[in-house]
Amino acid sequence: MSLTHSSPDSAASAASAASSTLRRLSAQARDAALTAIHRGLTVAKDDILAANSRDLAVATKAAADGTLSQSILKRLDLNRKGKWEDMLKGILDVQDLDDPVGKVSLRTLLDDGLELERRSCPIGVLLIIFEARPEVIANIASLAIKSANAAILKGGKESTESFIAISTVISRALDNTEVPNGSIQLLTTRDSIPDLLKLDRYIDLVIPRGSNELVQYIQNNTRIPVMGHADGLCIIYLHNAADPEMAMRIICDAKLGYPAACNAVETLLVDDAALSKQLPPIAEFLINQGVSLRCDIASKSALTAALPPRQAALLQDSVDSDYDTEFLDLILAIKTIPHSTDNTAVEMAVAHINSHSSHHTDCIITMDSGVADTFKAGVDSAGVFWNTSPRMADGMRYGFGTEVGISTNKIHARGPVGLEGLTIYQYYINGSGQVPGDFYEGEGGKKWKHQQLPLN
Amino acid sequence: MSLTHSSPDSAASAASAASSTLRRLSAQARDAALTAIHRGLTVAKDDILAANSRDLAVATKAAADGTLSQSILKRLDLNRKGKWEDMLKGILDVQDLDDPVGKVSLRTLLDDGLELERRSCPIGVLLIIFEARPEVIANIASLAIKSANAAILKGGKESTESFIAISTVISRALDNTEVPNGSIQLLTTRDSIPDLLKLDRYIDLVIPRGSNELVQYIQNNTRIPVMGHADGLCIIYLHNAADPEMAMRIICDAKLGYPAACNAVETLLVDDAALSKQLPPIAEFLINQGVSLRCDIASKSALTAALPPRQAALLQDSVDSDYDTEFLDLILAIKTIPHSTDNTAVEMAVAHINSHSSHHTDCIITMDSGVADTFKAGVDSAGVFWNTSPRMADGMRYGFGTEVGISTNKIHARGPVGLEGLTIYQYYINGSGQVPGDFYEGEGGKKWKHQQLPLN
Repeated sequence: MSLTHSSPDSAASAASAASSTLRRLSAQARDAALTAIHRGLTVAKDDILAANSRDLAVATKAAADGTLSQSILKRLDLNRKGKWEDMLKGILDVQDLDDPVGKVSLRTLLDDGLELERRSCPIGVLLIIFEARPEVIANIASLAIKSANAAILKGGKESTESFIAISTVISRALDNTEVPNGSIQLLTTRDSIPDLLKLDRYIDLVIPRGSNELVQYIQNNTRIPVMGHADGLCIIYLHNAADPEMAMRIICDAKLGYPAACNAVETLLVDDAALSKQLPPIAEFLINQGVSLRCDIASKSALTAALPPRQAALLQDSVDSDYDTEFLDLILAIKTIPHSTDNTAVEMAVAHINSHSSHHTDCIITMDSGVADTFKAGVDSAGVFWNTSPRMADGMRYGFGTEVGISTNKIHARGPVGLEGLTIYQYYINGSGQVPGDFYEGEGGKKWKHQQLPLN
Repeated sequence: MSLTHSSPDSAASAASAASSTLRRLSAQARDAALTAIHRGLTVAKDDILAANSRDLAVATKAAADGTLSQSILKRLDLNRKGKWEDMLKGILDVQDLDDPVGKVSLRTLLDDGLELERRSCPIGVLLIIFEARPEVIANIASLAIKSANAAILKGGKESTESFIAISTVISRALDNTEVPNGSIQLLTTRDSIPDLLKLDRYIDLVIPRGSNELVQYIQNNTRIPVMGHADGLCIIYLHNAADPEMAMRIICDAKLGYPAACNAVETLLVDDAALSKQLPPIAEFLINQGVSLRCDIASKSALTAALPPRQAALLQDSVDSDYDTEFLDLILAIKTIPHSTDNTAVEMAVAHINSHSSHHTDCIITMDSGVADTFKAGVDSAGVFWNTSPRMADGMRYGFGTEVGISTNKIHARGPVGLEGLTIYQYYINGSGQVPGDFYEGEGGKKWKHQQLPLN
């Protein structure tokens, strides 16, 4: 790990140099570095938590002054129940995953003695810009080393002391491994982001983890590819053939499970025929849990008739912008889809989703598999779920062990991004002197074989 | 196909709408559209070639005035031998490829009745900005429709008449198919590029095919992801254990086969021990073919001693910038790598390549497989070839049927990009009412199964 006060240019140049060595290391050597980091952090627990307490003291004061939000304060705290243990377990979880590097995804015999092979390889140098969570440094360092990428980490200033403490431990741990010390660079320099975004000669990919504003600022200010980890406007379509109890479970989980998360539901589309059938008990439960329902005319009218007066009185009228808003709060926009006996209704739901969702994860609740198929074929989002909650969109739940975030990009990696999303591939050819000029129509010309070979 | 005079905004919005329909069409429906386009172009050959002649007449005058280059004039001409036939054959070649959409690449049982599936899908709307070649419109239209992507094509103004003729035919052909007419948009409006680059709400990927300047301009002026099809600075390392005859064949092909192509060799690294052994006959042949050799001190000295005086007199001294120059011409920079009996020499070659090549395609010529392995493990380029020419880097030669270009990006798609590079994936979950809250440690909690299922 780097000196924490190096300049953006020297940090990026050192990361680039380290990445050349890192990509050649065996999986064993990379895994051994994770063991060393895990051991180092275990031993240094008290020092790190003390540094974190110093960050917390400053931040608590800032929060009391109103210059820092309570949620940042909360995310900063490494002493919160389970957080330290989860951080350490995350390192071992990543270590246990298959090596993502060197996987063969294509083998083609071009000619006798001329073989094309495509193998996964690290992307190179990652720049990860993130918020105040100090545990991210250990998670990202593990993911980067496991996938043989060098990483430059730029964290929030609130957690500087914790970062320095953790980075010192990681640096010392790497010193006794084959992984070069420069593979993980930590930058605490204020205002280094604009400089970093210019370093496309060293940095291959930027991964911002933060607010939509941060992601957009970065997309607008760099020519380095950006893997966008934006927030999510997730939509559930409650079809008239939905099982009522299943609909209740799913919608309540999606709104109440973790309202501030990017995979929470924000808009509920309801088939006209479900307005007075499946919807009322769900609406009543949500209202009782403190959720504000912002309804269109049809849904408000149906719910007003179906709900007890006390709950009905809490129904709100939606405005157009509600269907484009990620509330991240106990608010749910409801919109009615006119019932039809053909595919018109589901097509309308799909059209609404394709123009209003953030293409993160959208769901349908129905027992009609034909309708579900139409929905899945039409919705252009990273996750398209049938009869489950959008909150299933998560690297751990998908079985990826962990994730660097959830990508709403439509190239490279989409949805929860684990180790595979941190790799790209190279084409190798093993030849025996053939050149393209050997291959031509007519006498004496060779023909391309283009025979697919088994991958193992 | 669109009206050719529509605005960037309306073209992009129409392409986006068409893409929603296109992604749901069967492979048969998409293939049928390619048949219709092929048939339409076959019938309209005379009209299209007449339009092309009108473009050519204007361009010939411009070339005579010196306002247009001869090479653009050449690329514009659809009447050149084999060009029309290749264009038509390209459509059928793409049609014959496997459907790239709907391929399952991951299936995981998360729980009984809860299955995660990852399937390939189109990216959405592509913006392809290219030069004067009128045949590209038919190639790209085929690739886009086959991969269920809508495409906006912005061509050079020199080929406007040809474009309008071809687009009218494609438009009429699509009218009788299930592929929406708006799927392929042609823009001939001058100066529409800056407006197009702002339309990230409709456009998912920009593919510039042109000069480095064009690619860089686009990277600097859009937040839409750019798949860079830049030029190439390809390097060959001539190792001391190279077979002399093989080295001659490969290096001559790489420099002489098509010097203006991005996969031609620009720098030759030569092991000290090969300077007076394998290099002299190669150098003599290249000089006799009109190639200027720009040599460092050691190689010039060795070649001066080894070559006949007439050829030796033509040797040039290299300057540092030669090793960072893509000549695209009959010029080759030569640099000596000090010989070593351990890995030092190949490591030096790798280090030179990683800092000077454009990471397009780099090669080693050697009979020592251990050295080749070290080289392949170290070089961070899209193509790393052993005992063959960098000119093998080509979609047709790789067996991809055709390509939209060669990507020097390190995310999404790398090297020759065919249909697979025009797809991304979606995650589907088929559930039966499970929510994340069902899964927890302790009594009553479900455990994630995370069992990998067969892909078929």
